[in-house]
Amino acid sequence: MKVGIIGAGRIGKVHAKNIAMFVPEMEIKTIADPFMDEEIEAFAKRYGIPNTAKDAGAIINDPEIEAVIICSSTNTHAQYIIEAAKAKKHIFCEKPIDHDLKRVHEAIDAAKEAQVKLQIGFCRRFDHDHRAVYEMVRAGKVGKVNLIKISSRDPEPPSIDYVKVSGGIFYDMMIHDFDMARFVAGSEVTEVHAYGAVLIDPAIGRAGDVDTAVVTMRFENGAIGIIDNSRQAVYGYDQRVEVFGSKGAALDENDTLSTAKLLTADSTSSGTIHKVMWDRYTGAFISEMQAFADAVINDKTPPVVGEDGLYPVLMAAAATKSLKEGRPVAISEIE
Amino acid sequence: MKVGIIGAGRIGKVHAKNIAMFVPEMEIKTIADPFMDEEIEAFAKRYGIPNTAKDAGAIINDPEIEAVIICSSTNTHAQYIIEAAKAKKHIFCEKPIDHDLKRVHEAIDAAKEAQVKLQIGFCRRFDHDHRAVYEMVRAGKVGKVNLIKISSRDPEPPSIDYVKVSGGIFYDMMIHDFDMARFVAGSEVTEVHAYGAVLIDPAIGRAGDVDTAVVTMRFENGAIGIIDNSRQAVYGYDQRVEVFGSKGAALDENDTLSTAKLLTADSTSSGTIHKVMWDRYTGAFISEMQAFADAVINDKTPPVVGEDGLYPVLMAAAATKSLKEGRPVAISEIE
Amino acid sequence: MKVGIIGAGRIGKVHAKNIAMFVPEMEIKTIADPFMDEEIEAFAKRYGIPNTAKDAGAIINDPEIEAVIICSSTNTHAQYIIEAAKAKKHIFCEKPIDHDLKRVHEAIDAAKEAQVKLQIGFCRRFDHDHRAVYEMVRAGKVGKVNLIKISSRDPEPPSIDYVKVSGGIFYDMMIHDFDMARFVAGSEVTEVHAYGAVLIDPAIGRAGDVDTAVVTMRFENGAIGIIDNSRQAVYGYDQRVEVFGSKGAALDENDTLSTAKLLTADSTSSGTIHKVMWDRYTGAFISEMQAFADAVINDKTPPVVGEDGLYPVLMAAAATKSLKEGRPVAISEIE
Amino acid sequence: MKVGIIGAGRIGKVHAKNIAMFVPEMEIKTIADPFMDEEIEAFAKRYGIPNTAKDAGAIINDPEIEAVIICSSTNTHAQYIIEAAKAKKHIFCEKPIDHDLKRVHEAIDAAKEAQVKLQIGFCRRFDHDHRAVYEMVRAGKVGKVNLIKISSRDPEPPSIDYVKVSGGIFYDMMIHDFDMARFVAGSEVTEVHAYGAVLIDPAIGRAGDVDTAVVTMRFENGAIGIIDNSRQAVYGYDQRVEVFGSKGAALDENDTLSTAKLLTADSTSSGTIHKVMWDRYTGAFISEMQAFADAVINDKTPPVVGEDGLYPVLMAAAATKSLKEGRPVAISEIE
Repeated sequence: MKVGIIGAGRIGKVHAKNIAMFVPEMEIKTIADPFMDEEIEAFAKRYGIPNTAKDAGAIINDPEIEAVIICSSTNTHAQYIIEAAKAKKHIFCEKPIDHDLKRVHEAIDAAKEAQVKLQIGFCRRFDHDHRAVYEMVRAGKVGKVNLIKISSRDPEPPSIDYVKVSGGIFYDMMIHDFDMARFVAGSEVTEVHAYGAVLIDPAIGRAGDVDTAVVTMRFENGAIGIIDNSRQAVYGYDQRVEVFGSKGAALDENDTLSTAKLLTADSTSSGTIHKVMWDRYTGAFISEMQAFADAVINDKTPPVVGEDGLYPVLMAAAATKSLKEGRPVAISEIE
Repeated sequence: MKVGIIGAGRIGKVHAKNIAMFVPEMEIKTIADPFMDEEIEAFAKRYGIPNTAKDAGAIINDPEIEAVIICSSTNTHAQYIIEAAKAKKHIFCEKPIDHDLKRVHEAIDAAKEAQVKLQIGFCRRFDHDHRAVYEMVRAGKVGKVNLIKISSRDPEPPSIDYVKVSGGIFYDMMIHDFDMARFVAGSEVTEVHAYGAVLIDPAIGRAGDVDTAVVTMRFENGAIGIIDNSRQAVYGYDQRVEVFGSKGAALDENDTLSTAKLLTADSTSSGTIHKVMWDRYTGAFISEMQAFADAVINDKTPPVVGEDGLYPVLMAAAATKSLKEGRPVAISEIE
Repeated sequence: MKVGIIGAGRIGKVHAKNIAMFVPEMEIKTIADPFMDEEIEAFAKRYGIPNTAKDAGAIINDPEIEAVIICSSTNTHAQYIIEAAKAKKHIFCEKPIDHDLKRVHEAIDAAKEAQVKLQIGFCRRFDHDHRAVYEMVRAGKVGKVNLIKISSRDPEPPSIDYVKVSGGIFYDMMIHDFDMARFVAGSEVTEVHAYGAVLIDPAIGRAGDVDTAVVTMRFENGAIGIIDNSRQAVYGYDQRVEVFGSKGAALDENDTLSTAKLLTADSTSSGTIHKVMWDRYTGAFISEMQAFADAVINDKTPPVVGEDGLYPVLMAAAATKSLKEGRPVAISEIE
Repeated sequence: MKVGIIGAGRIGKVHAKNIAMFVPEMEIKTIADPFMDEEIEAFAKRYGIPNTAKDAGAIINDPEIEAVIICSSTNTHAQYIIEAAKAKKHIFCEKPIDHDLKRVHEAIDAAKEAQVKLQIGFCRRFDHDHRAVYEMVRAGKVGKVNLIKISSRDPEPPSIDYVKVSGGIFYDMMIHDFDMARFVAGSEVTEVHAYGAVLIDPAIGRAGDVDTAVVTMRFENGAIGIIDNSRQAVYGYDQRVEVFGSKGAALDENDTLSTAKLLTADSTSSGTIHKVMWDRYTGAFISEMQAFADAVINDKTPPVVGEDGLYPVLMAAAATKSLKEGRPVAISEIE
């Protein structure tokens, strides 16, 4: 199965490497990037990718390519999905599909009409720790779900330039947690309430965003959810999920760089956690691509479908509105 | 220093035992309870308490008694505080002072006028785990406080009869967490938002209360707080506090009954947590009474003063209002 | 049931306090110590012990006293056991019974002839952590026992004066671990091999002892055991037991002073462990005395009988011989 | 830098894959195996290895190849080292070099004379957990080393056919731990004492080996070491290292498959550990090959040299002799 990768930035390269190394069922024929340069050419060569291109058309119009991996900037996602769908190619697209709900719907509809697979890149669903919590919940080990708690904190804030175009913390950062909340709850969110604050860098406030945010949610099944986000946890990339129910609680902790401990007269110290997202979710990026290959080759529903790209955007919109208006906002107010 | 104990129910007996065993500076002269019976008489004898009485007057009017420990039902707290203050006795009073804010103020004012010590029984402040988190925060180890997260879940719901007179989950259960939030934040709450649900027992709903509640808070210093409560965590009495700041995070976990682990082919299992509040906070009840003795004998400000009894009641009132009205409620709306 | 305590040193006082506070079935009538002074008199008064004496005869010859708690120096244990047994009193005796095997046998025989209970003070058997490991093993959770590993390290060495009269590390320190090994193995040791070294304080070597020792053992049931001892673990009182078998492994870790953790940019630090033996085994001292009371009152076999006092002494003798002669020594060589 | 791999069994393939994926500085030109078949041919193709051969001569005699990776059966290691050295190729050789000390010396001498790098495949030195312990020790965090404790247990015993040719548990299994003991101690072993037993499978005993072994050691620097081995830990591949010293202790625990925990009314269960060696030491195999590339390319001393291949064989010989003769055996008795 031949694939093409649109976008050769950080995430595009991660997917390219992982396919080359860990997904033998896929063969990357072409990688395209408008800023194609020697460095990307060398990268392609190193990982056995025969063709490079500036224009995504080299992929979308290639009849030999069966699937595209969309890793370009967010504002191009919907357009490439629509074009790839028209060309009858299966699609893996990075999150979010778009900030504009209309575009999200158009993209999802295009894939449906064309009857191609569309998988959204919510990689955390494939993380070994979160997945273990999810499986405990799905296996009924915690019983009926009553509470969901997610802590998600970045090691350091992005650049202010990025903050300005990011769509805000809810679209850029908490979107992953909105997906995780739905994923582990097995139910949709009906209402959210957001608190936010600028506690880390006043420049983030001046850019119109907050750097610390807490969102509480009501789910259709009655459960209540909590997400906290911070743009800067100096101790590392803090990612924890907890599901509490009628029969117990399932929760994960952060992986540490080693299990080694040091006991001295004054303290007991243990391994620090990952400080880089790419290190924490190394395995998750591999697993999601293997799952995409499996879905395409064995004609299965992908594990993260188009609608899974839609709901977190609705939640981000509601949270943004809640923060602005100082009141709980129903998801039904958004669409 | 001779003391009297008003109320010989569960908590009255715990304080009596602890004073007898671990607070040599105090000598219990009298224990009073309107339902005085043979069992309480035997208890008094066993712990070397020379006098028992039905009427609290036997304590309040005894010139030899320097301090009273008020362990009677909540609706009598304010009255006994006022009477004891008039009699120039130092006062340790169980939480909450009262559900009625006016009564709370009257009680606090009475103690102030009489210039007697008034310590409120927020025992969790003295727990070795929470105290360790608190001390890390106070020592500046986490830097500026950005987020506070408290999970507080009971092993099983109280009787429906109790629920009916409890004042609701915010007054009866989360009041401890409101105190803990203020304690670790070192700042006052300005606004709260509450979500609540009946997920455990419909009878709790019929009694006009919720059994699962999530409250988010804004603090004066900008921090955001989260408390989750459940009336039933089948795995035990779940009590965790986390403080996240600019330099790091301090958090505690539940004590387990033992550190023993069992590794078998199928699983790794470790010790369960306490299932009974009295077991978890055994040391905390002792420490708070030692602190009260220290405050009286060495003329120090008690570690939990009258105002500490007031603020959690304000927060409970605001949370109750928020849940009812479906909107965030400022503390300033309450008084 | 009236008891007398012979010896009012550190351990005598611990037992006296625990009986006064936690063993209501026992009443301490007399405490005797050849160095009786005002401080002990005050202690006795504080804990409601009506009589004090210089001579143990005041206890042994008191017909009202049913049981004696022997907490005097090791060289007097056997004599007091024999006298108390003749006086038909039940006996709790601190470990070891004696370093001289003949005396150990005489003491055990005296108790048997007199048909009085004799419990030896191996308190660690009653520790909540070690007990949990033991119960897993006894419940068959680890299957057939293959390996036993015990780490036992003191926070700091005793005084050189004490080392000189202690009988050496095997009699004074590892004796507890010899008992623990037999206890969890459910089998007797047939041979030991010892390595020892002076790594902490050369003065310990000059006093004829080692400060670091590793003993390996063969058990009758085929299992192999390992004990390591150090006179100085600067991080605290390190006490761990592990039992490995055909179905799994049970192991415990050290209790920590709190469960609080601190995550900062550089490290994750957690609670230190106990630095004082009395703190670690607080609960164990209480439990062993409750068990003694239970054995006497309900006419049960004590949980640690006279023979349990004998075998660790045999093991200590064999280990001492092994270290001296540089070869494995069979227990059968000792008697 | 072009390399050849001699031996295409399990470990040969692991090294081939890792070089292809994670060591861009190396290019595998040829893989040789006497049992070359279609499956190996396909493997070579998949990982971009252009040549396959039955005879190692195709590698050793290829002037273009700079380094050889010896992954053939143990009895051929020394011969290939000698031939490769003569051909002036750098050498990475799996452990052990040989069971015959004379052959070990010949191999080491050959590499020295030829002035080629010789790295021995003690991969555990590169494991993130053990490495963290090692680095704490080397950084002086535990002070002077007093005790070393290593637990090393396999998830299941090898086939009896393998046991018969393995050289015994000390040469086949504990050899890794002997290396680890030297590595963390920073000192050589002078004497060992071994206990062994057949507790898992009588057939192992009939094959002349033991399946459970405990070795204690004296080090030149005075420290005492303990290693325990079992051929079957049903709960997984148990690998722990502890170093105790004058300033504290450094120890590691087993990695778990996830950090997820489940708390229910009856138990708290957490992730199981790896059950397969290849999963536990995945990263270690990569790191050791990167280190070899680094040593060759940058002309550094490899991190595990020929002598590091010699000493563990001496220790295995001494342990074997100790078990047979029932006495401690000095390393000096061996050579």
